[in-house]
Amino acid sequence: MKKTLIAMAVLAASGAAMAQSNVTLYGIVDAGIGSFKNGAPGTSSETEMRSGGLSTSRIGFKGTEDLGGGLKAVFKLEAAIDVQAGATRTPYFGRGAYVGLAGGFGEVNIGKNWTALDDIYGAGNSGFDGSRLAISNAVWASAGYADIPNSTIKYVSPSFGGFSGAASYSLDQTIGQSTDVTSFQLSYAAGPLAAAVGYQEEAVAVGADRKTTMVNGSFDFGVARLIGALGKVSGIGAVSGAKADDYHVGVDVPLGSALTLSGGYASSKSKTGGVTVSKTDGFGIAAKYSLSKRTTTYAGYRDADTENGAGVKTNELKEFIVGVNHAF
Amino acid sequence: MKKTLIAMAVLAASGAAMAQSNVTLYGIVDAGIGSFKNGAPGTSSETEMRSGGLSTSRIGFKGTEDLGGGLKAVFKLEAAIDVQAGATRTPYFGRGAYVGLAGGFGEVNIGKNWTALDDIYGAGNSGFDGSRLAISNAVWASAGYADIPNSTIKYVSPSFGGFSGAASYSLDQTIGQSTDVTSFQLSYAAGPLAAAVGYQEEAVAVGADRKTTMVNGSFDFGVARLIGALGKVSGIGAVSGAKADDYHVGVDVPLGSALTLSGGYASSKSKTGGVTVSKTDGFGIAAKYSLSKRTTTYAGYRDADTENGAGVKTNELKEFIVGVNHAF
Amino acid sequence: MKKTLIAMAVLAASGAAMAQSNVTLYGIVDAGIGSFKNGAPGTSSETEMRSGGLSTSRIGFKGTEDLGGGLKAVFKLEAAIDVQAGATRTPYFGRGAYVGLAGGFGEVNIGKNWTALDDIYGAGNSGFDGSRLAISNAVWASAGYADIPNSTIKYVSPSFGGFSGAASYSLDQTIGQSTDVTSFQLSYAAGPLAAAVGYQEEAVAVGADRKTTMVNGSFDFGVARLIGALGKVSGIGAVSGAKADDYHVGVDVPLGSALTLSGGYASSKSKTGGVTVSKTDGFGIAAKYSLSKRTTTYAGYRDADTENGAGVKTNELKEFIVGVNHAF
Repeated sequence: MKKTLIAMAVLAASGAAMAQSNVTLYGIVDAGIGSFKNGAPGTSSETEMRSGGLSTSRIGFKGTEDLGGGLKAVFKLEAAIDVQAGATRTPYFGRGAYVGLAGGFGEVNIGKNWTALDDIYGAGNSGFDGSRLAISNAVWASAGYADIPNSTIKYVSPSFGGFSGAASYSLDQTIGQSTDVTSFQLSYAAGPLAAAVGYQEEAVAVGADRKTTMVNGSFDFGVARLIGALGKVSGIGAVSGAKADDYHVGVDVPLGSALTLSGGYASSKSKTGGVTVSKTDGFGIAAKYSLSKRTTTYAGYRDADTENGAGVKTNELKEFIVGVNHAF
Repeated sequence: MKKTLIAMAVLAASGAAMAQSNVTLYGIVDAGIGSFKNGAPGTSSETEMRSGGLSTSRIGFKGTEDLGGGLKAVFKLEAAIDVQAGATRTPYFGRGAYVGLAGGFGEVNIGKNWTALDDIYGAGNSGFDGSRLAISNAVWASAGYADIPNSTIKYVSPSFGGFSGAASYSLDQTIGQSTDVTSFQLSYAAGPLAAAVGYQEEAVAVGADRKTTMVNGSFDFGVARLIGALGKVSGIGAVSGAKADDYHVGVDVPLGSALTLSGGYASSKSKTGGVTVSKTDGFGIAAKYSLSKRTTTYAGYRDADTENGAGVKTNELKEFIVGVNHAF
Repeated sequence: MKKTLIAMAVLAASGAAMAQSNVTLYGIVDAGIGSFKNGAPGTSSETEMRSGGLSTSRIGFKGTEDLGGGLKAVFKLEAAIDVQAGATRTPYFGRGAYVGLAGGFGEVNIGKNWTALDDIYGAGNSGFDGSRLAISNAVWASAGYADIPNSTIKYVSPSFGGFSGAASYSLDQTIGQSTDVTSFQLSYAAGPLAAAVGYQEEAVAVGADRKTTMVNGSFDFGVARLIGALGKVSGIGAVSGAKADDYHVGVDVPLGSALTLSGGYASSKSKTGGVTVSKTDGFGIAAKYSLSKRTTTYAGYRDADTENGAGVKTNELKEFIVGVNHAF
């Protein structure tokens, strides 16, 4: 009789849980306080609270359904949050809204989704790829690609002996963006080595399409992980001769099981018609300390200067932030 | 001791589940790709990704609470999503936000809710009542009623020997819409037969209220389900003599347990002061294939032409879509 | 073997539940219908549906994570809903978006959050602190403080022998509000007695900061709970000599386990440069009846008049509402 009661309790618990089991509710709440300056030389710093220093604050709903025969249906709906303002961004599910099918062949999905190139960009970053920690995010001209276009069809391959890849195509349509976006990436990961190459083309204007190429790699020596990345973009601002060449080197250093330090240097040189029009370079250092599997504190400093073709400084960026990141 | 451990685990699981059991999180992610044309003759088709071909993409929160004595409290909050753009529509819970009481007497709720007429409209549709599959949605002038007004009080009856009905009244108020809406429906369903009649009045302007009447029925022969529907509207555009007469005939044909075909023809004739001002008619064919209980693929084609009173074609609609619909 | 099956079922149930256990989804759906008038004498009443008569309709996501050593990570994201319009307010998580750490020391959190003063304001209200039931909400000039500023750092103390307190500071920053807000409160609760004092300063303009002080207390005699509150504000509308003095007295009377009556009288006198410019006073009566732990019906009437310095009536407020409030 006790067993029956237990079994009933199990069924009751199971039933209640099942009512929720079709969807996983997840998210990140990340906020920090720091000093921020980004403007013409002489601009003063401001003390501010900012959302998403380590990773963009978000709330999402995702799920999978087993269709049998190794096939699964998948979906995701994800919103970005600016914690300090209690605001969500527009469009609401701007970090992904798609439905797809997955199986041995990989995954195909349709909706609003990150391009194939975006899948590899973060791997070439130091500073934990943090929104306000990674120096590349503040320096690279090539990082200005369309990262999550509307009306995207995406294919992500499974892994073949360490190799994997993805391709995405986003439709130019009246209800959506007025340009189509084509994007590819090929990645390799085995043991301590990881490497990736990606390419993206945005049909902005005839003869002036924005074309972005990225290559990055990392090697984990155990005591430190070295990171290197190259970015190349042409057609900046829909101008055919406007190009930029970017690079980044960085290192992640784990100190014990919870603390990791990271540092990086990034550079970007922009030319129009072969003439240098601006040059930005800078460095970033960051630390993160895990309080648990889901909660991390972090701190970072980024410093970058921009000068024009004549070597005159036109912009200073100095950012210091300390924050906490909680995933649920 | 093991039993105690199990019991504790049961309690733990039950407790965790209970923390979630007051609310059900549900939704639909539906997206498709197709060719769309809707404009003056000569308008070219566009290849587009569209959300909600079969049913509007949505996310919702609903629940019931047993109050004892056969009484329940109910609530619903439901948002519409445009998957291809990652966008939610405005207002956010535009597909329903209400609280109510339900019991042996039926259900009474208050908030933003579908009118009584809207409850029966879909039953008169072929093409699985799909947003981009059902031909009536593209043809009927009478389908332009206020479907989900603000500040609505709604009563839904229980079923009495196959008969059921609903009534809704939406308040005209400064914070809300500037017109009140009164709506009724009576439905009958028994065995293979279903039939419904509905009426809605929107107090738009004195002497020119929009009044909509709909009648529909279906009979399921097993090999096919025949559908017929009539719609009648007066006061279109708040003009007292502006009327339309609509009809639709359709058939659903199940082919095996997973595949269903559907086809329909719809017509709408609009008159002002007794003079025909426009006539729209067209057909739609559609198929849906269930990959599982929650995931369905579908395809459909709709074709409709509009001509003015002089018989000159003024609008062409041609839509083809293939998509996937996943419910969670 | 059966035990194993049970254990497996427990694990399965537990697993499914755990997938949801990091976050609690909660909310309130509250709507009512009533007669509302708020304007110059002679303004006519309007019958309207209104959201949140008893408490603001909302949906939220919150959670805690045990970090060990008595420390917890906490987060909250909460949206306000206007049920009758199916709308959420802007910003979306305008009722709180924060992350923090809690422990024996209390709780520190950062994000968008209620000020310390706001923590005590409701305790000085009769009418169950209902948005459309409490008379103070309609009368008090001092209730117009910034209640939930952006970029807020908040500390909430634990209870020490009945005493507890909180302090909040909201940053003035370009991305956020253009004023900083400093707020404190100290509360005492033991047995039938509760008392609180709070202070808030909003740096609106030099020499004309808005400063709000509130003191309230209540004593529960069992058959009735008496409530008294004082409010004082200066710097209304960023005018240095613009002040108001407010008071409120009220009583809650429980009649049985489910029904509670409440009544209150509130008064507010505004002066600029020592000269009385307006005087508002009025009363409210309300009743709430619990249908269950989570569902409550309520009704209330509020009546308040405003007159100018010359004693001429300038505004009439008369509100009657009956509604239902469901928490999930």
